[in-house]
Amino acid sequence: MVALTAEKQDRKLLSRIAAGDGHGENSAYFDGWKAYEENSFHPIDRPDGVIQMGLAENQLCGDLMRKWVLEHPEASICTPEGVDQFSDIAIFQDYHGLPEFRQAVAKFMEKTRNNKVKFDPDRIVMSGGATGAHETVAFCLANPGDGFLVPTPYYPGFDRDLRWRTGVNLVPVTCHSSNGFKITVEDLEAAYENANIPVKGLLITNPSNPLGTTLDRDCLKSLVNFTNDKGIHLIADEIYAATTFGQSEFISVAEVIEEIPDCNRDLIHIVYSLSKDMGLPGLRVGIIYSYNNRVVNIARKMSSFGLVSTQTQHLIANMLSDEDFVDQFLRESKLRLAARHAELTIGLDGLGIGWLKAGAGLFIWMDLRNLLKTATFESETELWRVIVHKVKLNVSPGGSCHCHEPGWFRVCFANMDHKTMETALERIKVFTSQLEEESLNRTKPMAKKKKCWQSSLRLSFKDTRRFEDGFFSPHSPVSPSPLLRAQT
Amino acid sequence: MVALTAEKQDRKLLSRIAAGDGHGENSAYFDGWKAYEENSFHPIDRPDGVIQMGLAENQLCGDLMRKWVLEHPEASICTPEGVDQFSDIAIFQDYHGLPEFRQAVAKFMEKTRNNKVKFDPDRIVMSGGATGAHETVAFCLANPGDGFLVPTPYYPGFDRDLRWRTGVNLVPVTCHSSNGFKITVEDLEAAYENANIPVKGLLITNPSNPLGTTLDRDCLKSLVNFTNDKGIHLIADEIYAATTFGQSEFISVAEVIEEIPDCNRDLIHIVYSLSKDMGLPGLRVGIIYSYNNRVVNIARKMSSFGLVSTQTQHLIANMLSDEDFVDQFLRESKLRLAARHAELTIGLDGLGIGWLKAGAGLFIWMDLRNLLKTATFESETELWRVIVHKVKLNVSPGGSCHCHEPGWFRVCFANMDHKTMETALERIKVFTSQLEEESLNRTKPMAKKKKCWQSSLRLSFKDTRRFEDGFFSPHSPVSPSPLLRAQT
Ligand SMILES: Cc1ncc(COP(=O)(O)O)c(C=O)c1O
Ligand SMILES: Cc1ncc(COP(=O)(O)O)c(C=O)c1O
Repeated sequence: MVALTAEKQDRKLLSRIAAGDGHGENSAYFDGWKAYEENSFHPIDRPDGVIQMGLAENQLCGDLMRKWVLEHPEASICTPEGVDQFSDIAIFQDYHGLPEFRQAVAKFMEKTRNNKVKFDPDRIVMSGGATGAHETVAFCLANPGDGFLVPTPYYPGFDRDLRWRTGVNLVPVTCHSSNGFKITVEDLEAAYENANIPVKGLLITNPSNPLGTTLDRDCLKSLVNFTNDKGIHLIADEIYAATTFGQSEFISVAEVIEEIPDCNRDLIHIVYSLSKDMGLPGLRVGIIYSYNNRVVNIARKMSSFGLVSTQTQHLIANMLSDEDFVDQFLRESKLRLAARHAELTIGLDGLGIGWLKAGAGLFIWMDLRNLLKTATFESETELWRVIVHKVKLNVSPGGSCHCHEPGWFRVCFANMDHKTMETALERIKVFTSQLEEESLNRTKPMAKKKKCWQSSLRLSFKDTRRFEDGFFSPHSPVSPSPLLRAQT
Repeated sequence: MVALTAEKQDRKLLSRIAAGDGHGENSAYFDGWKAYEENSFHPIDRPDGVIQMGLAENQLCGDLMRKWVLEHPEASICTPEGVDQFSDIAIFQDYHGLPEFRQAVAKFMEKTRNNKVKFDPDRIVMSGGATGAHETVAFCLANPGDGFLVPTPYYPGFDRDLRWRTGVNLVPVTCHSSNGFKITVEDLEAAYENANIPVKGLLITNPSNPLGTTLDRDCLKSLVNFTNDKGIHLIADEIYAATTFGQSEFISVAEVIEEIPDCNRDLIHIVYSLSKDMGLPGLRVGIIYSYNNRVVNIARKMSSFGLVSTQTQHLIANMLSDEDFVDQFLRESKLRLAARHAELTIGLDGLGIGWLKAGAGLFIWMDLRNLLKTATFESETELWRVIVHKVKLNVSPGGSCHCHEPGWFRVCFANMDHKTMETALERIKVFTSQLEEESLNRTKPMAKKKKCWQSSLRLSFKDTRRFEDGFFSPHSPVSPSPLLRAQT
């Protein structure tokens, strides 16, 4: 009691922001990380540990990076070849950033948009990752109480990035599995009309996290037209621009606005980062690219709160201006991502587990709707707990991404080595065959009851029937939705 | 007209924050930087350019840094010795930071506080420089509309850092030259009583920017007691902790709270950074050290918006844990700062120009009150324009630091080489002798009027009398305030 009172007292001394939980970490998305942290998988030390499939990290091309770095000692201010610049670089704190950094990033952004558009280095504003970029954009565009439309499901971090300290709201635009979670103007209109707050913009993620899908040209045009017509902003998070493979074509909003004659570009803003496409999340290189001069000006002033370390700017400037390397890196990265994606999805196909057909991002959107006891988020959470604590795979439940339909899970595949992926697939296989066995046992009620996978669960399952139905079986009559499987 | 309407229209689309000028850059402090940028001094290319004396940068020990870096290739992830860690480091994005980074920073903070206190690595929260740290602390402690007391004169960046995006107010506590700008409890009480808003804390800068002074033990104790009694927070910006020389003794608030038996530590927070003491502002290493558990927890979540690049964390962790190097660096740095400080102040003394006696920081607080036409900030600005545009030295007028008395100027001395300092002193000398000549000419009114330094000014001087009075002369009857000269 005393402690509680002290804590309450303490909270009174702090801001409402600090006393509240708008940081959004009280979600399964982050809980899963904690489970992983407490008992993380290691092939030798903790072979029974949780495998982290909840982290959208690209670790597949570290060797290429390492090779380049060794071949380019001048890119670092900490080598005999580069140290003469140590002082100049370490002291540089202009929020415009190193000119060569902005130039190289602009060029890289062109490359990752298939050289179909030009980016002006003077519009490149840096920030502390896309995380910082989103907050900055929200501070620039909206007042506390205003809202941004966001199609669901969406990246859980948005709740923190755009809302927490800005006081801005996110207005979900409900997308549906029936059409592969496409964003339709009807759904946008509905959300816009029903929002009881001033809507200042639409935030899209293309390619999508968590879906792994890309938006096609017509859709993008309709979104530009919708926002232009309403006179609201369009923010495109294109952090996975080069993280595409297979048949997925990524089209940037930068390209589309060139095809719309009277487009009001003052309403168009792109958020980017090197965290995914280059696999460098630790370096915190975030970018705001706005077509609105005043936003460029103000966002740049705000960037003082999260500038990119000049040591890192210098390295990145050198690395990204080596065009041969960048070309080769992006090519090889796509190949490796495609291979890993195929490994996972072929594995799931073999087990009869559905997933949304897509070819971008660092994850797949897995369909376990058939495994839910009831079509509720409570059931989704129950199933998720089983997957994290028994199957020992930390995947992210769709509910944490504000998905409207329970039963979807995001599974990351690029943050581990091949062996770990094999282990993960093996665990899923064991899990599904246990489910199948349960199902068979149920049909021979007199047989001696075998120790089943739920037996040691300390979760309060009131009804495990749906788990025992064996819908995971490849021979199950209820196969994953063919419509979804046909999506590209 | 059309353009204006378009701009107005444009602003309507943006947030109030973006449409306003709360960023604080519309001040002489920043204008001077612009003048410098447009025509920056270079000994060969632009010998008539503006010398930057408005930047609190420590460039005196770059050679020591460079030497260490060369001797420690393992500290970088971009050398053959360190590259094996490239992937692990570049991918690390935990907002707790690298454990070795937090440990090394805690140790360094102890060293820069003369090893009189311990710092707990688990309380070290990183941020995008002290700039980001201040904003984070403000977001944690105060609601929009609340206020923090801040003794004047203060670092102009605070207006941006603590206020701009948080909606928090700064309530000036007026300090006076008559007692060397000491912070007194009476002045604090007065400001606290007269603030018409909820006061949530007191922000002090120790050592002071712009004064260069340090707070003594009694003063610090009185500030802790004052804030504890009121139940408000005390934020101590100790960014210049190791930037002390001569007789100045720096005492950290961390030390003082140990001497106050019932101190409520939940109200005590330190802001720190490596920008000044290590001369590394480009690397954006900011620190929040709070004794309040909840603030540590929330500030750490907020640090997502401005994490330190892991490439930089790794380098800093290595560098700061080399204790011999740190000891030697800090010792040598103090010696060089003292020498440079002496060079400037002896030069000014020779010209009869007053300055506030102090031995910390990267600047002196120069007293030109006697040169003002009238004791107003308009006159201060006029004089400042002359100094920037004619004498071609970018110093910062006291008004931009919210000084209550016109006529003070902050002059930075550690961001240039010795030759440039000589040039700066030479310019001041020429300026003062011109003033003297003017003064002499005025006494022989019939003599042919010489081309004087004001003649080509395009500034709207209505009355240049005071400038012609020759108060700069060492023989001037109005010498700099002896009281101030006696301060240590
Ligand atoms: C869609 C999306 N936006 C932003 C981010 C944040 O990226 P950064 O590491 O650049 O802050 C992520 C990271 O997962 C993301 O998936
Ligand atoms: C008192 C004070 N606080 C904070 C800062 C900002 O420092 P940083 O470079 O760590 O953001 C400065 C820089 O001049 C300063 O003088």
